[in-house]
Amino acid sequence: MKRKRSLKYLLLFGFGAWLAVQTVQAAASEEGGHGLAPIVLLGLAVFLIVAKLAGEAFERFNQPAVLGELLGGIVLGSFALSGFAGIEPLRTNEVIAAIAEIGVIILLFEVGLESNLGEMLEVGWSSLLVAVLGVLAPFFLGWGVAAYFIPDEATLGHIFIGATLCATSVGITARVFKDAGKLQTREARIVLGAAVIDDVLGLLILAVVAGTIKAQAAGGTLAAADVGLIAAKSIGFLVVATLLGHFLVPHVFRGAGRMESRGVLLALAVAFCFLLAWAAALVGLAPIVGAFAAGLVLDEGHFESFHERGERDLHDLVAPVSTLLVPIFFVLMGLKVDLRVFVRPEIIGFATVLTLAAIAGKQVCALGVLERGINRAAIGLGMIPRGEVGLIFAGIGATLMLPDAQGVNEPVIGAATFGAVVIMVVVTTLVTPPVLKWSLARSASEVEPDEHQRAINETADEASERIAR
Amino acid sequence: MKRKRSLKYLLLFGFGAWLAVQTVQAAASEEGGHGLAPIVLLGLAVFLIVAKLAGEAFERFNQPAVLGELLGGIVLGSFALSGFAGIEPLRTNEVIAAIAEIGVIILLFEVGLESNLGEMLEVGWSSLLVAVLGVLAPFFLGWGVAAYFIPDEATLGHIFIGATLCATSVGITARVFKDAGKLQTREARIVLGAAVIDDVLGLLILAVVAGTIKAQAAGGTLAAADVGLIAAKSIGFLVVATLLGHFLVPHVFRGAGRMESRGVLLALAVAFCFLLAWAAALVGLAPIVGAFAAGLVLDEGHFESFHERGERDLHDLVAPVSTLLVPIFFVLMGLKVDLRVFVRPEIIGFATVLTLAAIAGKQVCALGVLERGINRAAIGLGMIPRGEVGLIFAGIGATLMLPDAQGVNEPVIGAATFGAVVIMVVVTTLVTPPVLKWSLARSASEVEPDEHQRAINETADEASERIAR
Repeated sequence: MKRKRSLKYLLLFGFGAWLAVQTVQAAASEEGGHGLAPIVLLGLAVFLIVAKLAGEAFERFNQPAVLGELLGGIVLGSFALSGFAGIEPLRTNEVIAAIAEIGVIILLFEVGLESNLGEMLEVGWSSLLVAVLGVLAPFFLGWGVAAYFIPDEATLGHIFIGATLCATSVGITARVFKDAGKLQTREARIVLGAAVIDDVLGLLILAVVAGTIKAQAAGGTLAAADVGLIAAKSIGFLVVATLLGHFLVPHVFRGAGRMESRGVLLALAVAFCFLLAWAAALVGLAPIVGAFAAGLVLDEGHFESFHERGERDLHDLVAPVSTLLVPIFFVLMGLKVDLRVFVRPEIIGFATVLTLAAIAGKQVCALGVLERGINRAAIGLGMIPRGEVGLIFAGIGATLMLPDAQGVNEPVIGAATFGAVVIMVVVTTLVTPPVLKWSLARSASEVEPDEHQRAINETADEASERIAR
Repeated sequence: MKRKRSLKYLLLFGFGAWLAVQTVQAAASEEGGHGLAPIVLLGLAVFLIVAKLAGEAFERFNQPAVLGELLGGIVLGSFALSGFAGIEPLRTNEVIAAIAEIGVIILLFEVGLESNLGEMLEVGWSSLLVAVLGVLAPFFLGWGVAAYFIPDEATLGHIFIGATLCATSVGITARVFKDAGKLQTREARIVLGAAVIDDVLGLLILAVVAGTIKAQAAGGTLAAADVGLIAAKSIGFLVVATLLGHFLVPHVFRGAGRMESRGVLLALAVAFCFLLAWAAALVGLAPIVGAFAAGLVLDEGHFESFHERGERDLHDLVAPVSTLLVPIFFVLMGLKVDLRVFVRPEIIGFATVLTLAAIAGKQVCALGVLERGINRAAIGLGMIPRGEVGLIFAGIGATLMLPDAQGVNEPVIGAATFGAVVIMVVVTTLVTPPVLKWSLARSASEVEPDEHQRAINETADEASERIAR
């Protein structure tokens, strides 16, 4: 019965997508005019409808909604191949792209809000070791695979592909453990802690690689010392932003708590997020690094004076905003996948090996578990899903330019590579639930939940709710 | 004590604005680069902070927050005059302008959500007559004043200025009655009903005038029959959208109610709003007309299956989104005021007479009251405040182009006229609370509230809450 309904949603979705293409095509023939182009309104409406229908269909099949949004975008984009020129303006519209990017900034802000510094320091050495191994192994594997399959691209391009393999999707991981009813296990605690550290390490690698690419594109050659400088700048930004935020934020929001107009909490929190995102961009980091730091620093504890007045908590206030903005990003990412690259067999080969590297790389994580009596296989399998962050990295790579062998500027992540990364994200996410469930069913290491685990589980619940939207 | 704190906020605001200018100036010297320009993030953050600080200061002086946002933008813009080139990119950035316009679309959607068809039909003949008189008198007065003060502009420009004088701000009106404790009176009922009808009539006039301007800019001359056609198209759109929505929406949302992923209600409602806004633009109307129609058609009653699952109601879900987006529009409007026009005495004269016309025009409303025992003066005074809608019209006028006497394309609302309209909006809004309070204190026409009045009062409360954010 449930499956039948899902099919109904898929059919409805197909019809909706067809209708969307028809209207978009009609709209594309209008003139531009001044002010907000109407195509933006149509595009946002179509993206939202596609995201919710496809997301719903995927959730009915117990798959994360984010995959539905991504594949919904791919389906929408595939209409462009059948000769509908109307999709093209949506793919390239600057305002839609900017809104999508603001969506990712809000998403990383939310992820930061759900993590907090204390928790990150508490999860212990196992998580840290699992995270470091889980970042290094896929990074070098991905680099190697890229160097083998696309030798013509610049070395920095290979390194960038390695970076897209680093980050485990904390949302999807939490969702898998929750669906398996295993959120109370030590395995879940280690994996979730590692996934958070993972994000930070991934963002650091991204900062260093992107910084190096920008420096090289600007014409200079780069010494090892410069790479060190970029790394130092990135770490410095995170440390300074976190420390400054840690000491300043309570004062600012205590002052703001005396302001009586509604919406002050949300507006100031988002302004803080945008300011750090801008500051990150200013020192050469990705804006999402700043947004994540902003979320990490903010804590519901700072907003007590707001809660006492009956304001909803920040998480609740940000939720509707991210409900609207985040799917725009994932549908757009799907839309940007150029399906034509998949008729080239070497790309299929590249995508397959890249996916295998992504899966194999995370199995090294099992070595990082220091404690005994742990289902090590489950740790490695739990770290498999790449999600938002891998896609976000690929999206950033598509906007970074690097001169190729002939000196012509090319995007670091070209159409073919982008398609391969999307396949990697989709497959790793689809494959995790069944294999992890199988591994957990064989495991017998369940322990009673203690206080700390309960806290972790709550974080995981929130994370999985986020991904479920 | 309260005043002292307000001064603190104003000082804080001044310092904040200065700091903002410094950082914006620093940012403006960066390169553009790909992807989302960092200046957009900085601009949005600065706009939000300015809006909340200035809005808070104004609320402490019992003035609507929207005035604070507007004047905050003007203060920010005044820094540009003192030689800070850094403000200019914020004023002209396309992405910020698009986000601001989406903010207005969301605002009109909210206003539509707060009104509903049934209520609009129930408020009776007095409200209708008050509304029609309150639209016609200021329209022709404004047209005449514009023709006298700026005779060089095209006649359509004069007519457009008349249109900006039409719409009473339903939010500000409701707020004034509420603050005076007079929401239970028949006067309040008539004024609030008229303010809603007012909005619709104003949007119709805007549609006809803007349509005529577009047709003329396209090169054709316009016969009276064509004007009639545009009017028919506008009314036709509203009727078709409303009827279609009325019959289709319950089915669509009943179907959507079976979808289980979170955020479906908000995403589909906003998508519906964007679709109607796009459709309005397609038939040549302003997108806000479509957004208003979308809000009018949607009704909490359609979402019962969502509420049963514990989803918050649509009004609550849209609130955080509008908290973030709507102030962006008003700060940007303030920023666009070119203070230099005010050193020209003829502009000051124009603004003064335009403001007087706006106030005098609405006093004609008193003639529209059919019932006896009503404080007619209070009706006329209650209709005075122009707010969002007047500004929105002026903003649209600034993007419409019309050939002048020499055949060069000029915006219908130039810098000087825009400044005069902003002065009109600010003064009419500032002047209403004291004079209306005085008139109500003299009145003795209070009656017991009946069922219907209570419903109206609730709408008014919601409207004033909206404006209070």
